[in-house]
Parts: sequence; structure tokens; C-alpha cells
Amino acid sequence: MTELKLIDWLRRQPGTKGIGDDCFIFSDLVFTTDMMVEGVHFEQSDEPEAVGCKTLARGLSDIAAMGATPRFCLLSLAIPAWATEAWTKRFYKGLLKHKVPLTGGDLSHASQLVCDIMVCGQVAKGKALRRDGAKPGDHIYVSGDLGGNARDHFKRAPEPRLALGRKLIGKATACMDISDGLSLDLHRLCLASGVSADLDTIPVATGATMDQALHGGEDYELLFTSRIPLQLTGIKRIGTIRKGKPGVVKLDGKPLKPAGYDHFQ
Amino acid sequence: MTELKLIDWLRRQPGTKGIGDDCFIFSDLVFTTDMMVEGVHFEQSDEPEAVGCKTLARGLSDIAAMGATPRFCLLSLAIPAWATEAWTKRFYKGLLKHKVPLTGGDLSHASQLVCDIMVCGQVAKGKALRRDGAKPGDHIYVSGDLGGNARDHFKRAPEPRLALGRKLIGKATACMDISDGLSLDLHRLCLASGVSADLDTIPVATGATMDQALHGGEDYELLFTSRIPLQLTGIKRIGTIRKGKPGVVKLDGKPLKPAGYDHFQ
Repeated sequence: MTELKLIDWLRRQPGTKGIGDDCFIFSDLVFTTDMMVEGVHFEQSDEPEAVGCKTLARGLSDIAAMGATPRFCLLSLAIPAWATEAWTKRFYKGLLKHKVPLTGGDLSHASQLVCDIMVCGQVAKGKALRRDGAKPGDHIYVSGDLGGNARDHFKRAPEPRLALGRKLIGKATACMDISDGLSLDLHRLCLASGVSADLDTIPVATGATMDQALHGGEDYELLFTSRIPLQLTGIKRIGTIRKGKPGVVKLDGKPLKPAGYDHFQ
Repeated sequence: MTELKLIDWLRRQPGTKGIGDDCFIFSDLVFTTDMMVEGVHFEQSDEPEAVGCKTLARGLSDIAAMGATPRFCLLSLAIPAWATEAWTKRFYKGLLKHKVPLTGGDLSHASQLVCDIMVCGQVAKGKALRRDGAKPGDHIYVSGDLGGNARDHFKRAPEPRLALGRKLIGKATACMDISDGLSLDLHRLCLASGVSADLDTIPVATGATMDQALHGGEDYELLFTSRIPLQLTGIKRIGTIRKGKPGVVKLDGKPLKPAGYDHFQ
């Protein structure tokens, strides 16, 4: 079982709908959940404020990818015996740093710490950015250098690109955030849009390897496409959308395997 | 640290709001999250359909407690190595039995299976049932017998009281679902309303003990108060709201300790 296959199976089940974008769109609201597990997304030894901050930042990155503005969040938290009252309070303080109202959630206990954030964002009805609008000829962009978080062993605090997301409303034809790595996430965007992609320039973060930039994951930069060239501070053009087998991504003419992070591999 | 104390601390933090009801109210929508952990809320040996069904049922019970109608849900799932593809698909099928659209979520892996459901419900603006409206003299009701799930070692599928919740709009002065046990949940309702309560009649499920009915938890019946006597099929009057020290619950005149389930005790 791979994540892609399980999600594909889910989308085909009667009773599911809207699965596939970074958020689910309901009228002028968008919704995402993001789960972090001790030993997978963070370690016991990490600063609790940083873990709390990252939890919400990951959800906010999905909100940014829709061009939305965050309104509130709910947090479910399963606490293991090692997490003291002081640890837990520092975790919440890190989460609250984002100034997004925390309005509820659930508490439980487990052997590993698990936290799941639900974030609700707002965006003009019908205007939310989606993954499925890329067309042949569109320019492909990312919002910054890639591979930096893999280089730093995933210790960097993600900076959700909320302001850029809002600017892309009406401009980007497709948008998502890079959470699992460019090669896998661009593959997903291309699958959703029914197109393929030619990459020519990869903006590799200083000190990172090309492999980390392509497949490293947790960069939380926005990946988006546009019909016309865009002039926005910090964005980098990386290639062109092509007509072709849906989901195929090439780098300098050679097929690039979607080799990003898969939880079940 | 107790759950009550942590939640009390959270409510006093700048940046939190609306914490305390079964759901967070945002315009005409209500939101809840509910987390289930392997070994705490279910066992590996349980039928996967039953685990999936229970996951959403617990969230739907919160929606019922607000008098709302469920609109959609998102599920975050951390899958351990023991949960095969077949197990996972059967789990989702159990969840989808409730006919509430599953519209997104997240996937991860962990050593224990952890699932967190977010449910969104809809209710006329300003009409959602809350915990803080009980007044001295109000009648206290439950929607059915208590202790049955504790008697059955928590294997019963909860039946969310959605139809009853909708009927209570405009009638109940306060409402919540009994997830952690009558003694603890009524204590919470009384604290939120700034009142105390006198219980006189406890509807004990056949074969259950009085202790299971008072403190057993996971009954998922509605606990609600009303200014006037209510005649609704299946509901049972259990006592009266009194002026007194907020949160104090008495049974037959004797103080009843809030001894329901606490995840951190």
C-alpha cells in the first residue's frame, strides 16, 4: 500500500468528495487537517515551542496554498507519559504564536505524542486556488529555494506563505504546498490537472544537494503555475507545463521519478 | 495535571476562544474533533468497520449535542505496521456507513493506530445548544439509560442522538453529550452554567451497576436541561438544577464526586 494508492482508492468510494486539494472547499471556507507523530515529524528532544509552532505552521501552509486567510484552528493531542505539564503548556504556547485563534479540540493519551491540527481558512467563494487547473504552456514556479529543510534534518520552522497565497488569487492556474518533496508533489499537481511537466531550473538551497531539493520534503514552499509570466518577489520559475501523460515530470528531458516521502513505504 | 485543569489553563490563554462546548460555533457552522487511540479507545482485535464507525459516531455525538446537522468530515489517520491495506479499507468503509461526506484529512504512520475525526455541522445562527445556559429550577434529562457501554466493556457502537438534538433547539437551556460519564459531564455543564445540580433518579441500563451508570462513560447519550417539563420519546428526567456552588452535583442529597474518565489520571 502506498499513500497515493490509498488516497486514489478513497476518492473512488461513494461517500467521499473533494479529496485531493490541500484543503476541502465549503462555500467561502477551506479546511485542512495535518497530523504530526513523535519520531516521524519531531523528536522528544525538540523544543516544545518549536513542535507546537510547526504543528500549526504545516496546517497554515495548506491554507496558504488555497490563497485563503486562516480564521481558527482546533487541536487534538495525545500525550505520552514523558510529556510533562510544563512541556505541554510550552507546546501550546508555541502553537499560539501564530495568532490564529485556537477554538477547541480533544485530549487523549498514547505511547507516542500525536497531534492533529485542523485549520479553517476563508477565501472569496469560487476563488480558492486548486491543483487541477494547470494547462499546457503554463509557467511553473516555486516560492523559494528547495532542500533547505532536508539539509537541516527537518529542524527548520516552516514559514507559511500566506501573503503570497493571497496574491496568487486570480493569477495562479494551480497551486499546492511542497510538503513531501518537489518530485512527488509536482507529480500530484500534474495528475490532478491531467498534464505533464518539464523542469529546467531547480533552485537548490545553499548547502543542500540536488537530491534534497527534488525529493527532500517539508520545504513548505508554494508550487504554482501561471498562464503569463509572474513578477513577484522571491518566486523562481522552474519549468513549463506540457501536454503529455498525466503526472509525468521530466528534468532536463529525463523522466523524474516521484520519490518524495511516503508514510507507508 | 488533569484534563479539566489543562483545559481551564488553555481557556485563560490569550489566543484561545470558544473552548468549552462540545463544538466551536462559527456563524451557522459548528466544529468538533475527536481522537481515538489504539489500546485506549479500541483494540487491535476489534472489527475494523466497528472502529471506523465509532470514530465518526463520537464526533457526530458532539454535533448532536449542539442541535446541528452534520455536513462533512475530515479524518487524520496514523497507521501502524500491523494495520494492513485490507484493515484500513474496512476501517474507512465503517466510517462511511454514517453517510456523512468524507472530504479530506491526512495520513501518517505511528506505532499505535491513532485516528482523529473533524466533523462540521450546521445549525441556525444563534440557535446552537450550549453548556452554559442551565438555570436554577431547570429540569435535568438524559436521552436514555446509562452504564450500558461500560457494562459491555465499551464495545457498543454509539448511536449519535442527531434527531433528538435537532428537536431540543429552542427547548433545552443547556446540552452536551455524555462521553466521560454522567458525574464528570454534569459537573462540567454545571461549571459552565454557574449552577449546581440535585440528582434523584438514575436510569441504569439493564445489567449495569449504578457505578457504571454514574461514572462509566462512552454512553453518548445527551444530557440536557429545560425550563419546562419535556415530553419526548425515550428521555428520562434525572434531577433539578439548583443555585449553589458552581459544579457541585448531589445524588439523593449527598455530594457526587466527578469521577469520570480522565486521560491524565
